[in-house]
Amino acid sequence: MQKVLDYLKQHQDRFLAEFCDYLRFASVSAQPQHKKDLVACAEWLVAHCRNIGLDARLCETAGHPIVIAKTPGRKAEGGKRKAEDKSRKPHCLVYGHYDVQPPEPLDLWTTPPFEPRITGRNLFARGSTDNKGQNFAHLKAVEAYLKTGTPLPCDLTFVLEGEEEVGSKSLSGFLKAHRQELACDTIVVSDTGMPAPNHPALTYALRGIIAFEITLHGPARDLHSGIFGGAVENPAMAMAQLLAKVRDHHGVIQIPGFYEDVAALSKYERDQIKRYPLSDAKLKKLLGAKELFGERGFTPTEQRSSRPTFEINGLTSGYQGEGSKTIVPAWARAKITCRLVPNQKPAHVRKIVCDWLKQNCPSTVRMEIAAGHGAEAYMVSPTSDAAQAALRALEKAFGTKPILMREGGSIPIVNEFKKVLGADTLLLGIGLPDDNAHSPDEKFNLDCFENGQRMSAFLWQELAA
Amino acid sequence: MQKVLDYLKQHQDRFLAEFCDYLRFASVSAQPQHKKDLVACAEWLVAHCRNIGLDARLCETAGHPIVIAKTPGRKAEGGKRKAEDKSRKPHCLVYGHYDVQPPEPLDLWTTPPFEPRITGRNLFARGSTDNKGQNFAHLKAVEAYLKTGTPLPCDLTFVLEGEEEVGSKSLSGFLKAHRQELACDTIVVSDTGMPAPNHPALTYALRGIIAFEITLHGPARDLHSGIFGGAVENPAMAMAQLLAKVRDHHGVIQIPGFYEDVAALSKYERDQIKRYPLSDAKLKKLLGAKELFGERGFTPTEQRSSRPTFEINGLTSGYQGEGSKTIVPAWARAKITCRLVPNQKPAHVRKIVCDWLKQNCPSTVRMEIAAGHGAEAYMVSPTSDAAQAALRALEKAFGTKPILMREGGSIPIVNEFKKVLGADTLLLGIGLPDDNAHSPDEKFNLDCFENGQRMSAFLWQELAA
Repeated sequence: MQKVLDYLKQHQDRFLAEFCDYLRFASVSAQPQHKKDLVACAEWLVAHCRNIGLDARLCETAGHPIVIAKTPGRKAEGGKRKAEDKSRKPHCLVYGHYDVQPPEPLDLWTTPPFEPRITGRNLFARGSTDNKGQNFAHLKAVEAYLKTGTPLPCDLTFVLEGEEEVGSKSLSGFLKAHRQELACDTIVVSDTGMPAPNHPALTYALRGIIAFEITLHGPARDLHSGIFGGAVENPAMAMAQLLAKVRDHHGVIQIPGFYEDVAALSKYERDQIKRYPLSDAKLKKLLGAKELFGERGFTPTEQRSSRPTFEINGLTSGYQGEGSKTIVPAWARAKITCRLVPNQKPAHVRKIVCDWLKQNCPSTVRMEIAAGHGAEAYMVSPTSDAAQAALRALEKAFGTKPILMREGGSIPIVNEFKKVLGADTLLLGIGLPDDNAHSPDEKFNLDCFENGQRMSAFLWQELAA
Repeated sequence: MQKVLDYLKQHQDRFLAEFCDYLRFASVSAQPQHKKDLVACAEWLVAHCRNIGLDARLCETAGHPIVIAKTPGRKAEGGKRKAEDKSRKPHCLVYGHYDVQPPEPLDLWTTPPFEPRITGRNLFARGSTDNKGQNFAHLKAVEAYLKTGTPLPCDLTFVLEGEEEVGSKSLSGFLKAHRQELACDTIVVSDTGMPAPNHPALTYALRGIIAFEITLHGPARDLHSGIFGGAVENPAMAMAQLLAKVRDHHGVIQIPGFYEDVAALSKYERDQIKRYPLSDAKLKKLLGAKELFGERGFTPTEQRSSRPTFEINGLTSGYQGEGSKTIVPAWARAKITCRLVPNQKPAHVRKIVCDWLKQNCPSTVRMEIAAGHGAEAYMVSPTSDAAQAALRALEKAFGTKPILMREGGSIPIVNEFKKVLGADTLLLGIGLPDDNAHSPDEKFNLDCFENGQRMSAFLWQELAA
């Protein structure tokens, strides 16, 4: 094991240069013009995995390709795995994604999003923390085992997809089609966060999501607001009035039934959440908001990890350019996502939300709702053998006692893994709260990068123990 | 006079070709990248006026240039004009603007906005009805007098500006600086509408306007809505809740004092408005809206001509691209204009609206209000000598009895004319309600173009009578 750790220590400069190569691909899955950047990035990954010593291949999908990379020598196994078969190595899946969020608005980046910049112990680039840096740390740990000839205590299969930021549409079918090849004991995903550099964390719950887009159509075209304004509905006003009714001034969603299936937080969980080492004052400073604001009756940490939300991600109507344009806009659009929590069913919440919107839409406009992706929330027991192994690996890698936490983001595929492959997922995120995931100036902390490599190295030992 | 009318009849084809040249200039005053197109358009106008036989010059301003063109031979007169001096010709100012609204959204145009297209009796192009076609009709009438050697019964000065669509910032100072040169008996403006091709109209009132932009700032940057959503205000939701309170579901503005100075409609005016030959059903069809909607207690024609409004011209927040982006936006912006009616003071209404917005802004966001342009409403007596002369000219040109109407749009400079030059303005618009002013596929009716030329020809006779 010491050889593995020494190897990691010795090759950080090269790892960093390779990581920057990985980040230069503008692999923005939501924007069609970047399709070829995603293919190029996937091909780069395949070549890189082969250099490390993995059996790697690029798998075409209806969307962006999936990269599969396996430790060499594992025999194909079919059907149900037998827990009592102690002679075989555990087989673990490491999931990550090489696609990234759109980088816009570009003018808010200090340096261009796809030209990595290192300042102190931070590496700035779109995709650095979400998720290239996190999955790359795992690849480097495996490289250390393979290049030093250290026997890997587990068989590993990397599944690196290109559609995570747009709902992982192809992955589910891929898992089903490759169910035998991918059958495994445990899945490891590093795509979440840890609260501070010295607070490693195991995340035991994630929020789910539903996405949709509301368009309200008013007049057939933009109208002169002088000639016609006053005698016809303004769809932007209709949109404002519709959205305004969704939430009251205590942050409580007013759509009947929205909270009905929400699993209440136990005292144990509320106590665990209190260990989260970020004060309200620090959170406020981190967000740069005038004040914190959320659903009445819950702490900010609870609000953003354990409570469902109705979030406007984008509003568009009428004239957006410089100066003024005196029109009644023809339409108004809102991009919405609701975060869901354990027990809420995406299809059910989507139905009650959309039904409510339809019932509350003024008769003066025509409503169109386009459904986007959806995913259930996730929750796993933090006392399982695998979770305990992960906690030990975290402690060895970071040198401090890890905390247990819920995370507010969504990793839709985690439920799919459970459903299709029957295995639980260990969420071992190494991103920090100030990493600006999904925001301008996204970055990744290089201490997290290095400790993440060590965590991965220890993890395969602890899981096989 | 017959020579003038014959000349007009004989040269329509050439007039049309010249009109198309005028329309090819992308003279979009709101967009800085078109600055040189405005200069080129103004220079073209000067050359064209000189060809007609006018004394024309281009006047630089801090913004876009103003074109001045005068009938030859008029002696400069200073100071106050004497009504009893019957020997001199009346001096009339013809005002128009060569700048146009932004053409966006471009994909809704059947053919490009600055490539004029004639289909039947309609000429499609940005600026065709607002306002190039209307001021060009006046130029062609003067050409007919000058080229046929027919004595013009009035001295004329054309004032053609390039900043009408952005608030006429330079014109007011220009009027003051040229007060003596521009001193006149009557001002003629064709920049309004007539209800139908066979219903010429004299407009006796216009709405005023105030423009402003509200920005609500939330977090310091766009945030990951999974990691942080629920614990921080979403500025798009704050904007929706703020704007929603402005108007109730009967179309009544809820800002206290908003209506306090509004001049009530007299029975005479409501009767005149009833003569307006556009049924609610036809208006609804024209707008392409699901239904008509406006302030309770007023007819649609009253709502859009005689009542103030609060209109959202544009809404912008968060992600606007394809697909979804799971963020809490850093800010939300609304572009607003209020139409004002006679008796309302722009500065006062702006103050009560902005004060109300500040009072009602949630404490969770920081509000910024950027003031735009403003203008008073306008109202003139339809029984004055000049108005009666205009009604006779309209009847002769169109062959039908004109109607008296209020118009919902704003021509801010009309009040400035009254204030600086002391003269009333005759609003003799020849645009049609389906001309798509400020919209994609803007067009101008060629019958209106020809009748407009005849109206202008008759007008100088009637005004001098």
